[in-house]
Amino acid sequence: MPSYNAPIRDIEFVLHEVLNVTENDVAGYADLEPEFTSAILEEAGKIARDVLAPLNASGDLEGCRLENGVVHTPKGFKEAFEAMKEGGWNGLDIPEEYGGQNLPYVLASAVGEIFVSANMAFNMYQGLTHGAISAILAHGTDAQKTTYVPKMTSLEWTGTMNLTEPHAGTDLGMLRTKAEPQADGSYRITGQKIFISAGDHDMSSNVIHLVLAKAPGGGESTKGISLFIVPKFMVKEDGSLGARNSLSVGKIEEKMGIHGNATCVMNYDGATGYLLGDLHKGMRNMFTMMNEARLGVALQGYAVAEPAYQNAVIYAKERIQGRAVTGVANPSGAADPLIVHPDIRRNLMDQKSFLEGARAFTYWGASLIDAAHRSGDKAADAMISLLTPVLKGFLTDKGFEVAVNAQQVFGGHGYIEETGMSQFARDARITMIYEGANGVQALDLVGRKLAADGGKPVMAFFDMVKTFIKENEGDEALKAGFLEPLKAASKDLQAAGMYFMQQGMKNPNAALSGSNDFMHLFGHVCLGLMWARSAKAALAALAAGASDKDFYETKIATGRYYMARQLPMTATHLARIQSGAEPVMALPAEAF
Amino acid sequence: MPSYNAPIRDIEFVLHEVLNVTENDVAGYADLEPEFTSAILEEAGKIARDVLAPLNASGDLEGCRLENGVVHTPKGFKEAFEAMKEGGWNGLDIPEEYGGQNLPYVLASAVGEIFVSANMAFNMYQGLTHGAISAILAHGTDAQKTTYVPKMTSLEWTGTMNLTEPHAGTDLGMLRTKAEPQADGSYRITGQKIFISAGDHDMSSNVIHLVLAKAPGGGESTKGISLFIVPKFMVKEDGSLGARNSLSVGKIEEKMGIHGNATCVMNYDGATGYLLGDLHKGMRNMFTMMNEARLGVALQGYAVAEPAYQNAVIYAKERIQGRAVTGVANPSGAADPLIVHPDIRRNLMDQKSFLEGARAFTYWGASLIDAAHRSGDKAADAMISLLTPVLKGFLTDKGFEVAVNAQQVFGGHGYIEETGMSQFARDARITMIYEGANGVQALDLVGRKLAADGGKPVMAFFDMVKTFIKENEGDEALKAGFLEPLKAASKDLQAAGMYFMQQGMKNPNAALSGSNDFMHLFGHVCLGLMWARSAKAALAALAAGASDKDFYETKIATGRYYMARQLPMTATHLARIQSGAEPVMALPAEAF
Repeated sequence: MPSYNAPIRDIEFVLHEVLNVTENDVAGYADLEPEFTSAILEEAGKIARDVLAPLNASGDLEGCRLENGVVHTPKGFKEAFEAMKEGGWNGLDIPEEYGGQNLPYVLASAVGEIFVSANMAFNMYQGLTHGAISAILAHGTDAQKTTYVPKMTSLEWTGTMNLTEPHAGTDLGMLRTKAEPQADGSYRITGQKIFISAGDHDMSSNVIHLVLAKAPGGGESTKGISLFIVPKFMVKEDGSLGARNSLSVGKIEEKMGIHGNATCVMNYDGATGYLLGDLHKGMRNMFTMMNEARLGVALQGYAVAEPAYQNAVIYAKERIQGRAVTGVANPSGAADPLIVHPDIRRNLMDQKSFLEGARAFTYWGASLIDAAHRSGDKAADAMISLLTPVLKGFLTDKGFEVAVNAQQVFGGHGYIEETGMSQFARDARITMIYEGANGVQALDLVGRKLAADGGKPVMAFFDMVKTFIKENEGDEALKAGFLEPLKAASKDLQAAGMYFMQQGMKNPNAALSGSNDFMHLFGHVCLGLMWARSAKAALAALAAGASDKDFYETKIATGRYYMARQLPMTATHLARIQSGAEPVMALPAEAF
Repeated sequence: MPSYNAPIRDIEFVLHEVLNVTENDVAGYADLEPEFTSAILEEAGKIARDVLAPLNASGDLEGCRLENGVVHTPKGFKEAFEAMKEGGWNGLDIPEEYGGQNLPYVLASAVGEIFVSANMAFNMYQGLTHGAISAILAHGTDAQKTTYVPKMTSLEWTGTMNLTEPHAGTDLGMLRTKAEPQADGSYRITGQKIFISAGDHDMSSNVIHLVLAKAPGGGESTKGISLFIVPKFMVKEDGSLGARNSLSVGKIEEKMGIHGNATCVMNYDGATGYLLGDLHKGMRNMFTMMNEARLGVALQGYAVAEPAYQNAVIYAKERIQGRAVTGVANPSGAADPLIVHPDIRRNLMDQKSFLEGARAFTYWGASLIDAAHRSGDKAADAMISLLTPVLKGFLTDKGFEVAVNAQQVFGGHGYIEETGMSQFARDARITMIYEGANGVQALDLVGRKLAADGGKPVMAFFDMVKTFIKENEGDEALKAGFLEPLKAASKDLQAAGMYFMQQGMKNPNAALSGSNDFMHLFGHVCLGLMWARSAKAALAALAAGASDKDFYETKIATGRYYMARQLPMTATHLARIQSGAEPVMALPAEAF
């Protein structure tokens, strides 16, 4: 069975040495002293290792069951969920007045990474609840906030998001779920929703569904959509639970992975719902939470691959097979450990250099959300809006790749479910799909974000890269290994952006034919920037005589690998982009 | 449930217009007239569509069961296997004296593609049998051939290959299975083998296991290994079945995919075995069949992705979601079909251009095997030895990618097992692992094949590419779209080869650090060459006034896509290779 140990030193390096959180003037950041954050991370790491990770494989094997309308989670999930409640983990970044601790989102993200790595399917029950809380806090009335949020913060109740219908996924304008206004101000909700993660379960006393539906008067398009709170059990004035609402689980989907999470078909049969936010503004309300929700999936993308990498490393050190090409490395054994072989090393370095860069990128994104939400920083808000599709699309595509590559280290043993390596790949696969499939992320990036506000956010991004390079070009230790590759990659990104601008108006297909490549190109530049910053921090620590020299030297070598072996991808992405729409769109649909 | 229709027109295009099989002077090729091959392909296509494909998803869901020592295959497999027996499909390329039809391997490969596409797990029962037949024909005594081959050809008996042990996968020198010589000339085989595909089942009356084991006197290394025939039921003089041999199924492995195939742990407890080929030459004997076995997995790699692509196309045409960026395409519907969206198109073109190129590459490989085996063509033998790791490694890595990308077209529906898209990805995953994990293929390519015979085979490959370009450079229709990208890619491949040669002796890690990239670079050049040849054939057909103009124009456009959008990868692979061993090997093992 795979093990997991939270990479706390790596997490702290990003928080304190790359992002320098305590020097950031976002509200609450000054409190993020290393001693404080490490106490929290250590505690999260313990629960992850001892409580959550041991249920990951068994949860996958057992899955969820629907019996007489009741969803049963796998053995041990209930007890683990009690531990999450007791620790107050779901309320880390929720305001104190609603039972939370009001800590920055960046710290909640670091903790979230640890929980996802340990058991992604399990963590989704609270992750979805957290998303629903954010929606209620952003758009609810005071009464709604008081009624729902404290009990969801404590996980006494959990939450879900109900968007998709059988015929309407990306295209929510086609939703059919109806909301009929009632005399008492409530609505009758009728329709079927599918793919509802954590849709029902046996670990909390109520489930608060947030449901997109069409109320009269808004028309047929997305403009007719409103958002509703639809509790599983009605909530009385005093907060106690009343009658069962008219909603039920149609079935639990059989999926490729995340078997420990109940993905439900939800049937609403005239269920009572309450409008959340303004009528007919449901889509806009969903969008306000989208950056955070998508960052959460970006985080899942690499976090689920982290234990895959950890176990690949353990296996590569233990499994002996063949001899090193440079001479016997393990003379007392019948063979050398896998890790001596250059192609195994290449594979592990691909994984390691991605994972650490992805972590820095994600926490940077989280810090931008903090700046936007906690300090009203509009530039940060614009930047995270631009970067959100890159985070979501690039990190989940690559995270899946890492999980698959980690599985490959195990050879045939990786294909056998017993080693647990297949599960990481199967679980990782969903992150490329949900919360907007990655093709939709690429479309959002190129079709919307790139031109947003006259291109100011993307120009700000280029300026930031340029400024970093300029400020550091006197540093010979950074120059060849980091600044030059970053400069070349950034130039490729600018050339791609320029190509889109020239084509955009007259040939929108040309821009969209390159959208997937652009998202990846952008992702590489972001990870290149993260690695250049990380290397700078590591060099500074070494220059200051840090005692854990090996840690910093490893950081620099890992970063150099990313720059040398991953950043060259930008040239290929650019070449594809510049080949334009013609090769992509040449065939009529019937020719396929 | 996914459907499958054999792409017979595409298969015939490769056989008759790209490879021009009837003009090839390999023994038996003159008989491959289009009417004859199309009759066979049509018949295979019917069985694939009506018998095998309908059992693919159900076989995955049900899997195999071990009960009281007996392996039960999924519902319907027995009846389908009877259909395979009746059709004589396993004997297509087996000599007539052993009950086969002695047709070329290239045609058997085309039929094999169809069966793998329809149901990979099912087809492995006969695929493994075919491999065992090849081993017996190559190394067996006349008596062994007569005893075993006809009944295996007819599938009355099936076969397996037993190589791996728990501690010995790639490194077969560490095998522990023992073979003790007996007075009657037989051997007592004792040991445990794992990952034995088609290890046991209920569809034939006997299973003929080929087992690698160590007989006394050969030492501890691979030199001590011999190959043995170990039947499940002893075979009497008259060919009838005798007592049960001392071997048993320990368990059936739970795997990520190919659930319809029983992957067994096999226990040999003093089982009676018969030496196959020379004593202590077991490894060499295995190697003589390796090109064919690995080509078979290369074929699986793309063939399992073909139905994934077909179903992605169907879905992309049927599923309506969003509107085309260039204006409404389906005014009578609530939305446009997915296929109007450029990123969906990009994804489908990636799949289509790979699959058709992979088919041509594989059949070319099969024709080289025919030339080597049927006509003793030594240059062909050297060429297929060089290309085998490229075929196996590149086509299976990319085939898996195609299956994953096809799944992506379905959005959330692709993650649900019901649509069957997950199965293609899960099944495809094994092809990257078995018959030598792809890292081992890359090692074989760079560490062995590249320098084989003083580099003559690789020089012959470059000459072939150069000659093709030279012979056709007057053709303006080929030049910009095909010849120039092929030339650039081939130049990258040569530069990489040159880099290895310079580094090889003094720094073997440098060559091996780039082995995976070299394998992929080589694969792209091969597919580039296949597409250039295919385009030439299509242009010739158009010039000759062919009636199915659309077919040829589609071919050319698909090829142009591959050249424009996939071949640019060669530059990135070269850049990675030329970054050398330093970034890859910089860290000590403890730093991971």
